[in-house]
Amino acid sequence: MGEVKNKQVILKDYVTGLLKESDLDIAEGTITLNLPEGSNEILLKNLYLSCDPFMRNLMSDIPDRFLPYAPASPLAGYGVSKVVESGHPDYKKGDLVWGFTKWEEYSLVPSAQILFKIEHTDVPLSYYTGILGMPGVTAYAGFFEVGLPKKGEKVFVSAASGAVGQLVGQFAKLSGCYVVGSAGSKDKVDLLKNKFGFDDAFNYKEEPDLNTALKRYFPEGIDIYFENVGGKTLDAVLLNMRINGRIVVCGMISQYERSQPEGVTNLTNLITKRIRMQGFVVSDYYPKYSKFLEYIVPKIKEGKIVYVEDIAEGLENGPAALVGLFKGLNVGKQVLVLARE
Amino acid sequence: MGEVKNKQVILKDYVTGLLKESDLDIAEGTITLNLPEGSNEILLKNLYLSCDPFMRNLMSDIPDRFLPYAPASPLAGYGVSKVVESGHPDYKKGDLVWGFTKWEEYSLVPSAQILFKIEHTDVPLSYYTGILGMPGVTAYAGFFEVGLPKKGEKVFVSAASGAVGQLVGQFAKLSGCYVVGSAGSKDKVDLLKNKFGFDDAFNYKEEPDLNTALKRYFPEGIDIYFENVGGKTLDAVLLNMRINGRIVVCGMISQYERSQPEGVTNLTNLITKRIRMQGFVVSDYYPKYSKFLEYIVPKIKEGKIVYVEDIAEGLENGPAALVGLFKGLNVGKQVLVLARE
Repeated sequence: MGEVKNKQVILKDYVTGLLKESDLDIAEGTITLNLPEGSNEILLKNLYLSCDPFMRNLMSDIPDRFLPYAPASPLAGYGVSKVVESGHPDYKKGDLVWGFTKWEEYSLVPSAQILFKIEHTDVPLSYYTGILGMPGVTAYAGFFEVGLPKKGEKVFVSAASGAVGQLVGQFAKLSGCYVVGSAGSKDKVDLLKNKFGFDDAFNYKEEPDLNTALKRYFPEGIDIYFENVGGKTLDAVLLNMRINGRIVVCGMISQYERSQPEGVTNLTNLITKRIRMQGFVVSDYYPKYSKFLEYIVPKIKEGKIVYVEDIAEGLENGPAALVGLFKGLNVGKQVLVLARE
Repeated sequence: MGEVKNKQVILKDYVTGLLKESDLDIAEGTITLNLPEGSNEILLKNLYLSCDPFMRNLMSDIPDRFLPYAPASPLAGYGVSKVVESGHPDYKKGDLVWGFTKWEEYSLVPSAQILFKIEHTDVPLSYYTGILGMPGVTAYAGFFEVGLPKKGEKVFVSAASGAVGQLVGQFAKLSGCYVVGSAGSKDKVDLLKNKFGFDDAFNYKEEPDLNTALKRYFPEGIDIYFENVGGKTLDAVLLNMRINGRIVVCGMISQYERSQPEGVTNLTNLITKRIRMQGFVVSDYYPKYSKFLEYIVPKIKEGKIVYVEDIAEGLENGPAALVGLFKGLNVGKQVLVLARE
């Protein structure tokens, strides 16, 4: 194979405020589908791309930001890919992998890039952008390793129908916890209650006062808050935490589009309630990926854990899918399909 | 002994905003210096009273507040007292104790009240309001048990010349850490550098931008922040924490006089830097009090730990001493002496 066309989703420039489709562009580049002699790189055909909240964060021009996107370059993110050619001894042509790639049809990734080989192919491949990929490990590590749940504890999950939240709620139920989730539409709330088995759920957009809402669902308070949104929700949660509670800080999607984040005012509750509020980064837990698969794959096959995806088709629809994520338009994990094999 | 006069410091009503001397009153009650037949209470003569930041917190009319003061009643707080009469088998007349008492000359405390018997009397008795009392255990438990310091780590302490801060800084040095403190006057900064052995110190009131100041003292970032003040300082610290840093949330004195606390905006740093931010309450660590004494008493006697008090004389000066604490007028631990024996 020689030089082929390579469609890409480009970030035009750093973004301030709400992400708009016009901040992104579809460009048509080219790529040579052969590795140069002696290269140890890996050439990937990207099949599924993952729309993740952290991506918005990398679009802001903030000093000291860890690995931000470069303007006029393709977006990067998690995806499922097939190896086209490999100069790396661990990968060979035809291998299916998931890991960090670019928003384009084909990507040339350096040998140092961490890619996970996909062993279980009797589940949808797209799952490796979610339940069996980064969001899955995020939910697992955050809930079990950071949250340290105990049977009978009360768990609150925000953005609960998203890729991570839906799993956290199911992990909580499997651990004998009581779990309530919040989400931003009636459809999502129905999903939480009827599909994912949350004990209860509410639409935060219909609650005039989140503190009152939380007191209704947690009259005895919250032991574990799985934080995906930040801002006003966090402030209301702080008023409703129990003694020795834990706040697992996974993400703060409500803040990523603000040039000035909302101030959180109830932090003195951390003291009186002896709260541990702890952030984490999923990649620290990748060494436990195989242990995670041992836990989750049988549960998926037995139907003990279910999973909902929102699938967009084609790279051209990537900008809309990504913008929709921050508007909460997706129901379940937002995936973009470029090719199915 | 029969009925005697009993001077008291009374909280007139709940306080909003800055505490003023006029919010407090000196009243003259009476007390009978005999226990009723069969009582298991303890009658105390109060010698030293402790001015502590948490007291302001108990003066606000905030729902769900843990044990707030009652308006028109005497203040309560930590003190050093002598047992006048005891119906409790663990205490006898003449015993010296420290624990929770009231701002008055004599107090009748219930048998369930936790009082620590003072065994070491070859140090100033007033020390049991500070270095050998609640603030001492606070510094010890917060730094060692919550902060989990490692040799070589960089430690920042706010309100560093206060009762807790001065000890945290010295514990940090004894643990092989680099430690910088902030305080609100040149005298305090001198004390930190020249008396307590902090590696460096600065006057936060002279820093136009705390973020810049912290970058100057911690070019590689902060591993442990011992949080005594909250608000803007916390926000600047969040920008300067290192990966896997810990924020020990001991107090937030800058927030206690605000009806609306300052919003903290940089909490997303918790995620990317994997920060553990943990509140604690000193009483949870009282079971370790004797272990704490074993650690600290020899160090005091050998001069390896020093301690500075700011002593006010007489119950009449209590309101001014307490108000001064929130204005930062005290240099070192603010103590009020009622009687020396």
